[in-house]
Parts: sequence; C-alpha cells; structure tokens
Amino acid sequence: MGYRKIGKIIGKIMILEGILMLAPLLVAVIYKEELRNVLAFAIPIVALIGLGFLLKNLKPPKEPLYQKEGFALVAIAWIVMALFGAIPFVINKDIPHYADACFEIMSGFTTTGASIVADISVLSHSTLFWRSFSHWIGGMGILVFVLIFIPESNDGSSMHLLRAESPGPQVGKIVSKMKVTTRILYLIYLGLTVLEVAILMFDKPIIGYEKDKFFISLLTTFGSAGTGGFGCVPSSIELFSPFSQYVVATFLILFGANFSLYYLILIGKVKDVLRSQEIRAYLLIFITAVLFVFISLITRMEQIPQTYTKEEAFRHSYFQVASIMTTTGYSTTDFNLWPTLGITTLISIMFIGGMAGSTAGGLKVSRVIIAFKGAFLNIRRLINPRAVGKTKFEGKTLEEKTTNDVFALITMYFFLLILVVLLLSFDPINGQTVTVVSDAGTYTVTHGFMSNFSGTIACMFNIGPGLEAVGPYASYAGYGVFSKIVLTFTMLIGRLEILPVLILFNPKTWKKG
Amino acid sequence: MGYRKIGKIIGKIMILEGILMLAPLLVAVIYKEELRNVLAFAIPIVALIGLGFLLKNLKPPKEPLYQKEGFALVAIAWIVMALFGAIPFVINKDIPHYADACFEIMSGFTTTGASIVADISVLSHSTLFWRSFSHWIGGMGILVFVLIFIPESNDGSSMHLLRAESPGPQVGKIVSKMKVTTRILYLIYLGLTVLEVAILMFDKPIIGYEKDKFFISLLTTFGSAGTGGFGCVPSSIELFSPFSQYVVATFLILFGANFSLYYLILIGKVKDVLRSQEIRAYLLIFITAVLFVFISLITRMEQIPQTYTKEEAFRHSYFQVASIMTTTGYSTTDFNLWPTLGITTLISIMFIGGMAGSTAGGLKVSRVIIAFKGAFLNIRRLINPRAVGKTKFEGKTLEEKTTNDVFALITMYFFLLILVVLLLSFDPINGQTVTVVSDAGTYTVTHGFMSNFSGTIACMFNIGPGLEAVGPYASYAGYGVFSKIVLTFTMLIGRLEILPVLILFNPKTWKKG
Repeated sequence: MGYRKIGKIIGKIMILEGILMLAPLLVAVIYKEELRNVLAFAIPIVALIGLGFLLKNLKPPKEPLYQKEGFALVAIAWIVMALFGAIPFVINKDIPHYADACFEIMSGFTTTGASIVADISVLSHSTLFWRSFSHWIGGMGILVFVLIFIPESNDGSSMHLLRAESPGPQVGKIVSKMKVTTRILYLIYLGLTVLEVAILMFDKPIIGYEKDKFFISLLTTFGSAGTGGFGCVPSSIELFSPFSQYVVATFLILFGANFSLYYLILIGKVKDVLRSQEIRAYLLIFITAVLFVFISLITRMEQIPQTYTKEEAFRHSYFQVASIMTTTGYSTTDFNLWPTLGITTLISIMFIGGMAGSTAGGLKVSRVIIAFKGAFLNIRRLINPRAVGKTKFEGKTLEEKTTNDVFALITMYFFLLILVVLLLSFDPINGQTVTVVSDAGTYTVTHGFMSNFSGTIACMFNIGPGLEAVGPYASYAGYGVFSKIVLTFTMLIGRLEILPVLILFNPKTWKKG
Repeated sequence: MGYRKIGKIIGKIMILEGILMLAPLLVAVIYKEELRNVLAFAIPIVALIGLGFLLKNLKPPKEPLYQKEGFALVAIAWIVMALFGAIPFVINKDIPHYADACFEIMSGFTTTGASIVADISVLSHSTLFWRSFSHWIGGMGILVFVLIFIPESNDGSSMHLLRAESPGPQVGKIVSKMKVTTRILYLIYLGLTVLEVAILMFDKPIIGYEKDKFFISLLTTFGSAGTGGFGCVPSSIELFSPFSQYVVATFLILFGANFSLYYLILIGKVKDVLRSQEIRAYLLIFITAVLFVFISLITRMEQIPQTYTKEEAFRHSYFQVASIMTTTGYSTTDFNLWPTLGITTLISIMFIGGMAGSTAGGLKVSRVIIAFKGAFLNIRRLINPRAVGKTKFEGKTLEEKTTNDVFALITMYFFLLILVVLLLSFDPINGQTVTVVSDAGTYTVTHGFMSNFSGTIACMFNIGPGLEAVGPYASYAGYGVFSKIVLTFTMLIGRLEILPVLILFNPKTWKKG
C-alpha cells in the first residue's frame, strides 16, 4: 500500500481546503464579525496549509495509483476535509460540540444537507457561508471522483463525457488525460452556478432579507449546485418568491442531470443527448412524480392543514419533487403531513435519485434502468436457457458484470439501510415528542421508526431532511452522539457509493503485497 | 410450450384439492351447520373433480417438463387452487365478495395469514377450518416446490436433503427419484403436526372455548405448520395459556427450520446439523432479536400502554420474534405500540424470514448469508484484482452465479416493495382513521405510508399482519378491490419468489420454440 503516495495527495487536498477556507474568512471580515469568528477560520487554515505542505513533500516511489488505493484515498480525503472543516464551528461557538460540527460539515461536503442546527437564525454569516460553500466544494469533488475512480464497467453511463472524447480511463489508474475533461466539467459547473446566481439576483428580494440579496442568492446557488440543501434563511426556500422557487427547482433538475450532456450540447451533439435513455427516464420519472404529488394534493386537500391554490399545489409539487429527486432537500412547504400518495411518491424518488455523472445522490436513474433490464434479462434466460440474452443500454450491450455490480450495490444499500435504522432505534430520543413549527401550523410528532427510517434514507442518499421528527422543518439535533456519528458515516458511505469506505476500513487493504 | 403437459398436472392438482375439500365439508356436517355451508364445499368439490378428470385425461407428447414450464405450472397451480378455494366462502356468505374470498384463500395457500375478515367470531367452523387447513396444504406445497423447481445454483442450501441422499435434481426436469424424498418430507411435516396437536391438547383449554379444544389445537397447528397465521379464535393466540404460547412459538421455530435437518437427525447425522452455517445463523438471529425486543420492552415500559411482568415481557418477545421471523403472524399481544427498538427489530426480521427448505417466507437466512459473503468477496476482489477470491458456504465454494442470483432476487424484491406501496397509496383508505381494540386498549390510527409499507412487506414475505392500520388486531378489510387484488398477487409473487409469476405473465413464455 502506497502510504506516501496517498499522503502526498492528501497533503495537496489539505492545502486546497486551506485556500478555500479563505472565502468564509473573508465573509467574516466583510460582515465585521467579532475576532473569534475570523480566527475560527484562520487557525484551521494555518493548520491545513502547514500540515499540507509537510505531507506534500513526501517522496513516494514512482508508481501508478492503483484502484484500491484510489478508493481508500477518496474516503480519507472526505474524512480529513470534514475533520478540519468542522473546526471553525467549534471555535466560533456556532456548533460547540465537535461531533455535531463534524456531522454538519460532513453533511455539507457529502452534499446531504442534514443539519443538527435547530435554528439557523442564530448562525453567523461566515458559518452560513462555510456550510453552503462546502456543498459547492463537495459537488465538484464528487464530479471528479465519479469521473476518475468508478471504472466504466461499474456504471454504464457515468462515462459519457469520456466516451465522447477519449477511449476512456484505464481501470485502476488515474490517467493524466483526465485533466482536460475535469477542467471542462468545472467550467460547466461554474457556468451554471453563475447563471443561477444572476437569475436569482434579478428577482425581488425575500421580505426581511433585502440587505443580503447577493449573499442569499449565492448561498442558495451553492446548495443547488451541489444538490446539498443547507438553507441560509429560516424555513429553507419557503419565503422566496414564487418565481425564485421555480428558478431554484429548475436549476436543481439541471444540476441533477449528467454533466456530460452539457458537454455534448456544447460540442453540438444535441442528437446524442436526445437519444440518451437515462435523460429520458430521468425526465419521465420527474414528470410522473410531479403529477402524482399534484394529484395527491388537489384531490386530498381536506387531509392536510395547509390550503394551497392550484398554482401553489403545482409549485410545491414541482419544487419538492425536484428537490427530493435530485437529493437536495430544500423545501418550500412542510410536506410532512401531505397525503399518503404524495409522501409515498417522495420516498420512492428518494431511492432513485438523480442521474449518474451529476452532483445528485441516490441509486441513480442509470442504475435503476440497468437493474430493470438485468432482471428482465435473467427472466428471459430462464425461459429460454439456450438463447443468448442481450440487452442494450445507451447503445451499448449491457454486460453481465455491469448488471451484477448494480444488483450487488443495491443489496448493500438495502443492508446498510436496515443496519443503520436498527442502530438508530437504540437512541434515547425514540418515543420522545418533538414539536414542529411550520407553514402547516404547530404540531407534535413522536420520534419513532418513521423518523429513523426516513432519516437514514435521507442521509444515506444525501438528501438531508427526512420525515416526521427529522422532517423539513425539524433537524437531527435530538439524536445522541452515537447516532450522530453513525449518520455521519452513513452520509459518507452513501456519497462514495459504499465501496471506498468499506475498502478503507478493511484490514486487507493495508497489508503488503 | 407444453399446454397439455401442464393441463394434465393441473388436472391432478384440482382432483387433489377436491379431495382435500372433503375435510371442511366433514367439519360442516360434524358441527351440524346449515345445508348451505355443506353445499358451499360440495359444489366446488364436484367442479374440481369433474374438471380435474377432464384435464387429467389429456394426452401430452412424452417429453420432460422443462424449467420454464415448471415455473409457469407452479404459478398456475396456486392461482387455480385459490380461484376454486375461494368459492365456499362466497356460497356460505362468510365472505360474500369473490375478490375478498380470493384474497383470503390466497393468503391461506401462500401461508401468509393476512385477513380481510374484520371479526372472525362470525365465521362458521367449516370456514375457519378451510382457512387454517389451506395453510397446512400450502406449507406442504411449498416444501415440494422448493425441492423440485429451484435449481441448486439458485439457492445453495435448499438442497441439503438431496445432497445427503442423491446426486441432486437435474436442473430443469422433474426427476422421478424426487418421490422418495418428497415422501420423507411429508412424514416429517406430518409428524411435527401430530406432535404439536398432542402437546396443545394436554394443556388447559382457553377460557370460553372448552368445547372446541381439539378443533382449536388442530387449527392452531395447521397455522403453525404452514407458518401461516390465520387465527381460529378472536385475538389470535392472546387468550392461550402461557404454556401453550411457549409451545406454539417453539413449534414455529421448528417449522421455520430447514426440513432436511430433521432428515439428517433421523439418519443419525447430527454432526452435519451442528455444522450447518444456516442453522447457526438462524438461531443467532432469533436469540439476538428476542434480546433486542425484550430489552426494548423492559427499559421503555413507560412508553407502551400495556404493563407486562418480566415473564410476560419475555414471553411476548419470544413469541413475537418467533412468529414474525418465521413469517407466521400469530400474536399474543398488540405489538403495534411497542417501543421503536422493538418495532424496528420486528421489521428487520420480517425481511430475513426463516430458513431455506422450510415453510417460512422472507428472503431466507441462507440468502442473507450468501449476500453478505458475496458482498465481502466483491470488496476483496477490488482490493486485490489478481487474487482468486473464494468463499465457502455450508462447506461448498460459493459460486459467483449463486451470489449474483441472490443479489438479483433481493433487488427485485426491493423494486416490488416500492411498486406495491406506491400502488396502495392510491387507495381511498389512505388518510382515513381506523379504530383498533386490543390488549393495549382502544386507540385510533390513520391509514398512511406505514400501514401500506408494513402491509406490503407482510404480504410479500407471507407474514400476514403488518403495523398500524393493518396491525395484529386490525385487518386488510379497509382496502379497496384494486388494492386487494394487488396484494393477492403480491402474496403469490412473494411465496413463489418472484420468478415463476413473472415467467407466467411473460408473453415470451408462451411462444413456440
């Protein structure tokens, strides 16, 4: 195992994090926050850059980075970034407990958006900025991670961009040609970000937040781009104008789509985009889900506390489906008490998630398609064992290894879900009553199975808010330290699609040979 | 496709069902029920035997039965048995609607135990008998089905009995040697049945049911043997003496174990039994689950309406875990309002289920082991791609095809679960309030996601009662016709482990070639 190789790259990543932390430091200065808030960022910046340079100067032997090392590296990188990224919250006392701070920033970097802060109105501007900025950084990180480390056979469609331009990466090695592709990805990401900020800036300000117009537009966009979901004003997107709500929801759908599609559009291959099975399925699922939720709201309005106009019902359906499907977690209304069809639709799309090659989490639309095709292929083989069963996805024959990997991954997610829900059910919070204040009024929920179950899905698939006691107008603050640590790792495991974290903690990874 | 081959076998099965229906007819006569109740069975008996003989006389070409035909046959057999088995309930007006009657008897034959009868105290003795007897018949059927149709590679451990005695069946054909094995299985099944009836008969009668001592012992045993769960007195097993409750729970564990183990004990190979990884895991999961539920009850007693003594808390934990893990569904108390840890443990073991080669449903312990081993093997291969990854299960090397089949099956169950819950969420029952009367007092629950979710798992894995509005003291009566039909098929799909039903409804199955 190349400890020095990994150490060197981690060093570079630490320096990068130190540099990125200058941004929230600048925010603290601009908003004239007290000295402690400035030091909160200055201290970890010094530590990160200092330690980073020490590690960067390691002299590893000239060897390529192998796949298992790559996987372990990614997991270590996320953990190191969270461990250092949590420090500011503890120093500026916005989140005094280190475990809580780690939960919060891991939720940021994994673009989950689950929060242990019950009331964000008490947070400083620099803290709010760092939380949302971590989504944007995490989103960038995941784009590169998927691009470089997931070999093509594991996921048929995450490699579109590469296929469009190069013969694709050699499995297990970081190919230097990647650099070009990475740069293009970043430019698209940056472009969409600038566009969303600009459009939000054009809109009327949120009532009561006129001064912070740019700040709010920027932070909301950070949360959209990473499909993260940390809010920067209380009650998430509820107070935004209808126009801004439509804008945010639409950008969520854009950020939840495969980035290679934008590249294809840029180089004029629009036909290839229209031919993509995944984009068609993505939009079809989105439209169907909006329809289900909308029908649920207008036919069962008497069952919910809120009274929506038809436009509001549609807007909330459009927004919540976009937010949940792209695993963002922003909310415009309290969907906790929505009718069963609405709730069930939202839970279903939690599992599906966004497209491969986007910043979204979840199983991914491509995997759902592959699993379906694989299942039907299995049945066809049983019906006629001598027939050579073949099925295509995105124009390429779906290999058995691909479908099997997807089946294995879904099974592992399934086991992880059961395990985490079981661990959370030991928490003393269970059976306690939680009061929720939202646009649905003030009501109480008992923390129980549904809170743990929805909360686990919401963390595992990097969505953020779950239902009931961890719903859109509640937080994860009530959980004990053990549960918070479990959920922190659940977010990481989900974000990196299980294998890297398991590889990291497998003793065999670290054996010589 | 061998229509006549399948028709001939279906004919034999219909004659068999006609003969088995003589038993409830006899019960109607013994209990001096009105003529309509006797005719309720006499009419379908005549129809079954008449039509059965017509089909039996078909002259198919001499060809072996191929795997796809075998799978389709099994699905057709279960459907035909349910369609005819439902007729008595409609004629004797105990369940006037045919769709309801089909739900009820499919629940019986699939050994699910989910009921659409809100109050079973109004049912006649012959109806009660036929419901419970269908569990016993279904349990027998599933033992043979697993033995004959599931090829060895699909499930590493369902074939113990065969491996102990013969070289195993040729995949895709019914081997005539099976007959010996089948007979041994039936004798074990019958022996355990007689034993349970005898032990229950020794016990003091349930207060208020002294007259029906044998009837109740027999019907309770039918429900145990098939791990079905239809009760024959109101409130399931709650009124039984503590001794009888321990007896029933223990027999459930026995019926949820792989029947080949009893065969091995009979032929003196006790060491082989002790060496079985599946039986060890089965008992370990059982003991752990009992412990979790017991801890949950004694540490959070203030959270539940019931007040249990320590012995009662242990007995209910022992009973409910045995009942749910073996997918029976009997209850001794209302676990609906139990603390979160208890509820979560029960839901977790719903997924696991009993052992392969038993009458229990669920994923099966063997599959859970195989999936875990397969997942770790995948990780080991990623860590060291050149190493030849191998892992053993029950002394044999686990083949990649086996683990992949298990992964695929779990994925299909997962999709089925989401699909059915989504379909149920369209039912008008959602949002309605249901009143539950149990040993926890009288309380109301709102039918919503948790009812649909737990109800779907309970039907898919042939458990019976779910939670909340379809909990142990409630029923499926509130669902509309569409939902009932969906759940009827869900029970069948779950019982036959998905593939046979999909093969039956796949047009390609019926093409020539």
